Amino acid sequence: MKQLFYNGVIVTGEKGKIVKNGFIVVDNGVITAVESGDPTEEYSAIDDKINLKGNWLLPGLINTHGHIGSTLLRGFGDDLPLSVWLKTKMWPMEGKFTEETIQAASSLAILEMLKSGTTTFLEMYHLHLELTARLVQKSGIRSVMTRGMIGLCSKSEQKTKLAEAVELNKTLRTIGEGRITTMLAPHAPYTCPPAFLEMIVGEAKRHQLPIHIHLSETAHEVDEHVTKYGKRPVSHLAELGVFDVHTLIAHGVHLNEDELDILAKYNVAVSHNPNSNLKLGSGIANVPRMLKKNILVAIGTDSAASNNNLDMFQEMRMAALIHKGNKEDPTVVSAKEALLMATYNGSKALKLDHIGLIEKGKDADFIIIDSRQPHLQPSDHVVSHLVYSASGADVLDVYVKGVCLVRNKVCLSLDEEKIIYEANHAFNSLQT
Amino acid sequence: MKQLFYNGVIVTGEKGKIVKNGFIVVDNGVITAVESGDPTEEYSAIDDKINLKGNWLLPGLINTHGHIGSTLLRGFGDDLPLSVWLKTKMWPMEGKFTEETIQAASSLAILEMLKSGTTTFLEMYHLHLELTARLVQKSGIRSVMTRGMIGLCSKSEQKTKLAEAVELNKTLRTIGEGRITTMLAPHAPYTCPPAFLEMIVGEAKRHQLPIHIHLSETAHEVDEHVTKYGKRPVSHLAELGVFDVHTLIAHGVHLNEDELDILAKYNVAVSHNPNSNLKLGSGIANVPRMLKKNILVAIGTDSAASNNNLDMFQEMRMAALIHKGNKEDPTVVSAKEALLMATYNGSKALKLDHIGLIEKGKDADFIIIDSRQPHLQPSDHVVSHLVYSASGADVLDVYVKGVCLVRNKVCLSLDEEKIIYEANHAFNSLQT
Repeated sequence: MKQLFYNGVIVTGEKGKIVKNGFIVVDNGVITAVESGDPTEEYSAIDDKINLKGNWLLPGLINTHGHIGSTLLRGFGDDLPLSVWLKTKMWPMEGKFTEETIQAASSLAILEMLKSGTTTFLEMYHLHLELTARLVQKSGIRSVMTRGMIGLCSKSEQKTKLAEAVELNKTLRTIGEGRITTMLAPHAPYTCPPAFLEMIVGEAKRHQLPIHIHLSETAHEVDEHVTKYGKRPVSHLAELGVFDVHTLIAHGVHLNEDELDILAKYNVAVSHNPNSNLKLGSGIANVPRMLKKNILVAIGTDSAASNNNLDMFQEMRMAALIHKGNKEDPTVVSAKEALLMATYNGSKALKLDHIGLIEKGKDADFIIIDSRQPHLQPSDHVVSHLVYSASGADVLDVYVKGVCLVRNKVCLSLDEEKIIYEANHAFNSLQT
Repeated sequence: MKQLFYNGVIVTGEKGKIVKNGFIVVDNGVITAVESGDPTEEYSAIDDKINLKGNWLLPGLINTHGHIGSTLLRGFGDDLPLSVWLKTKMWPMEGKFTEETIQAASSLAILEMLKSGTTTFLEMYHLHLELTARLVQKSGIRSVMTRGMIGLCSKSEQKTKLAEAVELNKTLRTIGEGRITTMLAPHAPYTCPPAFLEMIVGEAKRHQLPIHIHLSETAHEVDEHVTKYGKRPVSHLAELGVFDVHTLIAHGVHLNEDELDILAKYNVAVSHNPNSNLKLGSGIANVPRMLKKNILVAIGTDSAASNNNLDMFQEMRMAALIHKGNKEDPTVVSAKEALLMATYNGSKALKLDHIGLIEKGKDADFIIIDSRQPHLQPSDHVVSHLVYSASGADVLDVYVKGVCLVRNKVCLSLDEEKIIYEANHAFNSLQT
């Protein structure tokens, strides 16, 4: 099935490259042409012609870190010290989570992500992942799913968790028509003892799975690691062989110069979550320094419980703004770099080489932005406006593998009204 | 003319106070009742009944610092060192500004502000303010207008500028049916020599006008001030008598403990512009410390050339997030405080006692939020969602003095299509 999208501004996703008036051709979910100007005669036979009307077409956004299972806790506990928030808000509620909770939370999050232009998301969670995978299948979104493993338990429990993660790796990939891949996800160095991490690395190598792990989110956890093991977490993970497989770390807020060098040496990718890091008072990751060292930096929202939305536009904007103010230098993290982080870098961080760019041969995962809003005028500076002025609410249409999932701001693959009703119902059930 | 708005969540604007299912009555543009529950019999005679359908009604947002005259430079120069940006981008373009530019820029900005929920804005500009005032009149928005004065010129030119500002004070107030007030606005200590500031203070006292001034935005300007005058800007302004009249400063990024004490002593209000301060690499104002000292902190966007949008929701969110990360303390600047900054504190900073709250006796300036969006679920935590998850795109309706200016996301008082066309046309004219 061929589709022609014409009369639009094509933001290819390569650093700053834009086709001012152009078109793309999609054949069976794969991009087969990206051209400037009007479509020539050779494309006239294509039945499905979509007039972009001057709107902006760009790669779908890639959210490289989150926990959509906890979306119902959005706004449930704000402005609290981390330990109070976890002990009095998050953990007691998470202890009550049922299949209904995860169904409602994941549906809500996928709906929110699709409508705000995210076409791929990484999920790290520990409950009912098959259920979430079936929602991925139904919604048409793309996902990298990971079973978060906390190793603060007996060795046999550790083994059970790891076996479950490895098994899930196989079953989840059979769901979602090729749109689901997996990673192995030890939760963090402070929740996974060294021997458990080594077991996980072994399985990762055996099954050729990348690793995803929280790393150095707070100063406190780094201090505790040094006290306990006599070394900082990054060098410790390197020693344990974690970085011998492709690794994507989340956060990386508290890393010193030596640790950044280690990440660079092993090509470890970083999921930068600036809004969550600010909201929880964790701090500000040294992204300008990471970029200087050619470390691959992608962007993630973290969960709606600590963000509090899943709008990747707001995350891009924050990634481009926060370091300028923090370093008192307006030249660090340009708009082009921030857009790259949310698209192409995300695809590389997740080992999904077939998405992330509007380019011949890539899967047709893209979004269309309503360029006629007042905050996007004058309309010349497209990349600047996408990063510094747009929000998820400017997304008109969303395509994954050439399938239209959102049209004119309405999600076609999910029942919005039902999801919103069920989210509130499930949250109320938790409180009784 | 009486109006009844019922079946809604009323966010009064007092710190965290919410009426979960309530109604308000507006009589000739003034709020005459704010009640919980359904309207009783006594209100049945009101003809104009508006069903809020569970949506959220809150005070219109108050933008306490900006330069809408330069809106067409949105995205024209990003990610550049401040001096390069000013010398190669801003100043050459501003030098070409005509009446057409200001008309197009101001119309675009007012449209953007109204649609994103701002009902009052402060404008500091130096060109064609009467033209902007007539746009304020036409659009129905409320404005505090100030003629920004740069005193790096001869004494006679200074006198001319000041006389013009005083004269404008009278003429602008006759436009806009009472919705326009004025302040005197020396641009900044580094552009206004002490003798000129003293002249301005004299006129401010004579005409009972508050003062608005940029203050300590960058470390560089503070250092230069100390080199030139042997004292820091805040104590210098206090000595010159500036703070003897009500003063609203913009930015206040680089203030030490003594300076904060002086601001507190004189009840000087601060317009916090976090996005602009980040984007220009100016730094991060010490708002948590200001709040500790009971300094009145309001919020402003600054211009679209350094933000790059005028969405006060994004500004609230940033004000609530940035200090948590910067101080590594999630308890500073709560959602309630951020909402207060963008509403009630703004009204106090601008000396507009008749707006800023949903309360009997206040003018009916309010906005209605579409509570059915996925990113605002579960819907219980209204203040949290308004600050941490909402954006200007969630604004359905906007009222100023009881007049509906935006209905269902469409601006009724302005021609959106024409404004967007003219903004692009005027910008293109500047480039030729």
